[in-house]
Amino acid sequence: TLSTFLFWDSDFVRLSNPHLATMKEDVLYHFSLSTGTHDFPAMFGDVKFVCVGGSPSRMKAFIQYVAVELGLDVPGADYPNICVGTDRYAMFKVGPVLSVSHGMGIPSIAIMLHELIKLLYHARCSGVTIIRIGTSGGIGLEPGSVVITRQAVDPCFKPEFEQVVLGKRVVRSTHLDEPLMEELAQCSADLGEFPTVVGNTMCTLDFYEGQGRLDGALCSYAEKDKREYLNAAHAAGVRNIEMESSVFAAMCNACGLRAAVVCVTLLNRLEGDQISSPHEVLVEYQQRPQRLVGHFIKKRLSAA
Amino acid sequence: TLSTFLFWDSDFVRLSNPHLATMKEDVLYHFSLSTGTHDFPAMFGDVKFVCVGGSPSRMKAFIQYVAVELGLDVPGADYPNICVGTDRYAMFKVGPVLSVSHGMGIPSIAIMLHELIKLLYHARCSGVTIIRIGTSGGIGLEPGSVVITRQAVDPCFKPEFEQVVLGKRVVRSTHLDEPLMEELAQCSADLGEFPTVVGNTMCTLDFYEGQGRLDGALCSYAEKDKREYLNAAHAAGVRNIEMESSVFAAMCNACGLRAAVVCVTLLNRLEGDQISSPHEVLVEYQQRPQRLVGHFIKKRLSAA
Repeated sequence: TLSTFLFWDSDFVRLSNPHLATMKEDVLYHFSLSTGTHDFPAMFGDVKFVCVGGSPSRMKAFIQYVAVELGLDVPGADYPNICVGTDRYAMFKVGPVLSVSHGMGIPSIAIMLHELIKLLYHARCSGVTIIRIGTSGGIGLEPGSVVITRQAVDPCFKPEFEQVVLGKRVVRSTHLDEPLMEELAQCSADLGEFPTVVGNTMCTLDFYEGQGRLDGALCSYAEKDKREYLNAAHAAGVRNIEMESSVFAAMCNACGLRAAVVCVTLLNRLEGDQISSPHEVLVEYQQRPQRLVGHFIKKRLSAA
Repeated sequence: TLSTFLFWDSDFVRLSNPHLATMKEDVLYHFSLSTGTHDFPAMFGDVKFVCVGGSPSRMKAFIQYVAVELGLDVPGADYPNICVGTDRYAMFKVGPVLSVSHGMGIPSIAIMLHELIKLLYHARCSGVTIIRIGTSGGIGLEPGSVVITRQAVDPCFKPEFEQVVLGKRVVRSTHLDEPLMEELAQCSADLGEFPTVVGNTMCTLDFYEGQGRLDGALCSYAEKDKREYLNAAHAAGVRNIEMESSVFAAMCNACGLRAAVVCVTLLNRLEGDQISSPHEVLVEYQQRPQRLVGHFIKKRLSAA
């Protein structure tokens, strides 16, 4: 309940948009939710932790896992998809934890974050921590290693997110919350179950050419060019590559959400391009960020 | 069967990547399909029409609709998801028609297209026509109007797709197949069921600020700036805005696929930002590109 979290109460989710104050109703189209038909404070007012990830089934698995971890699971309980009116995103909730899928890539997670941040605002949530739990390609790490992002960087290794607004380029900072990063690193040390590093995460708009892969339908460079690029990324402190962290950091930063990115690496890109580990190995890898963040939430709640 | 389509047979799907010839196995990770475990020529060799769209349930509805239209439906037949091992994309097939979901945004559809084009290549498909059937925001059109894309343009109204490859900007043409565009316009005239125009489609990386909306979690401009931008887009021939057409045109163009984009407009952006029409109205709108393209496929097959 809210009273447990009084020490966070001055810390409301804010919007960075003066126009919204004039709207009577707000339709969150891609969630199939609206302030005109749903009671957001009642449905979401107690949310303190939001976890987001690409795959809907993984985000459902996470809510089931975290429900058991937090002792909130009831035998036979189901966690229905709150966004049942659409197949764009899936959303699940147990206690103070919200789990939302975001699909793949910057545009897909950005749509979700616009509507999620408005949802948290309309619900008058405060003291919210948001963590992306995802998959990535590693650089120079053993597959299955977990990377906690220090800085989300662009394909030129700069900690910036560039966006086109009304036809003009706008650059935003991709700053992430440092104390949260350290708290998560400590949680992984507590667990001692898998290798974890803190490092930079490169965020790209493409999985194939955009990440220097040689195995897409199109490829216009040589193996040597690829190797040089990945080595330069490693020298710039990049330890993994994914497709959502920069806009996630930029938007959360602008709206007063403490944010972190925790991704497992499915392969070492210095060794190859294809994700060809056995299915059951990949499934276990994908549980690692969930276990780390589950432990973090449990620890936070028991300290409250 | 292939013999019906002999006149297209010189027209194989090609890749623009010399490295693939050296690979023994090709894992299409985001489809959960591999040349090592699936017989692509047997599964997909007869594909002549590929339809893609954002939502998995809409692409399933399309295959059911087109099966009936083409007289290929068997009472009680189901169309199982071919990508059942993953929830990244969904894929359905009936006769020569493949229907694939692509999620939202350029990165999401680009991952799908890389793997789809490789799939068609490995299956030795020829004479393939690919059409995106999607949703969009209209500019100066009655909601429910269908736009057949003449040119996919960027947020500066240029017919270009810019991509970052190994940290450097690369620009590709977004040329679409003109005879196909005209054939589709004729199909809509045949049907006479809904207003259809041929016009430019603006492709953006963001749904809110990137399309000049005032209702996102962030907005850094005034209503007047938005109005000027949308008017400038209209003056440049833009009739609708969506988030996938430019990379779709660029990649299909590079790989010898005749491609078209057919999107319904869910609202008129000169009148507002929110998609607030009743659910059943929006459902009917979304069937319009399906009906147009269903008619097109039927007409092509009966002429063969």
